[in-house]
Amino acid sequence: MARPRSKLFPTPDDAENAFYDAFERADLAAMMAVWAASDEIVCIHPQGPRLTGFEAVRESWAQIFSGGATLRVRTTEVRAFDGQGLAVHTVIELVAPPGNESSVTSIFATNVYELTEAGWRMVTHHASTAPSEANPRREEAPSQSHTLH
Amino acid sequence: MARPRSKLFPTPDDAENAFYDAFERADLAAMMAVWAASDEIVCIHPQGPRLTGFEAVRESWAQIFSGGATLRVRTTEVRAFDGQGLAVHTVIELVAPPGNESSVTSIFATNVYELTEAGWRMVTHHASTAPSEANPRREEAPSQSHTLH
Repeated sequence: MARPRSKLFPTPDDAENAFYDAFERADLAAMMAVWAASDEIVCIHPQGPRLTGFEAVRESWAQIFSGGATLRVRTTEVRAFDGQGLAVHTVIELVAPPGNESSVTSIFATNVYELTEAGWRMVTHHASTAPSEANPRREEAPSQSHTLH
Repeated sequence: MARPRSKLFPTPDDAENAFYDAFERADLAAMMAVWAASDEIVCIHPQGPRLTGFEAVRESWAQIFSGGATLRVRTTEVRAFDGQGLAVHTVIELVAPPGNESSVTSIFATNVYELTEAGWRMVTHHASTAPSEANPRREEAPSQSHTLH
């Protein structure tokens, strides 16, 4: 018997653990169980467009997982901000192919969770590639001569 | 007579308006009045490192503003998530040099505000450059042959 969706994710940490677990296992159903079923959700993959709404977000993860490759994802440097009904975790994701831990890419992610009738759900995932340690850049946008911010 | 700091920013929208106003005017004091005076705050400028803590964040804005250039910043496509004591706004920033509105750069930003004893303050600003419309890319990290996310 299927576990009722309403029993999932009693805390934001539970939702975050489920998010990264689904990500590592490339499990689309588990991934989308983490997200709020809402037109307001926002997902930005590194170098990707800003996707809004459940269907667009689902389609993006389906594309990502369709490649069949699995990744090892660890998070570090967590900063958590907790309100009643809303929680934000900013993390650094360390992403690597399994068995090749030396090939780690760092991703900055801001994850937002909302307490819904079905427990805590992700409503925003904003991810962007961290600058290379060997080539730190700050405040410049590519191909722009002026300071952006 | 200086306005007491405690009277600032009765709502997250007020804090956000002050943030972009300070940004446009390159006003460091006004900018840092928006931020929570905390070691936990996080600021990621486009292509920049993840900065944590008030002093590191202040230093980054001082560098940005030291160039003397001012920018026109408009926000669009706002998605707001509100909890008691915490609020998140994801926006698209349209950044342009004054008088050159045709040279607009789009930036994705996730802004997090916390209700402190001194009113609503920014605790996280995560900004990343939007992909070029003419050259959309999705899910690939630069110089990586495998899908990241």
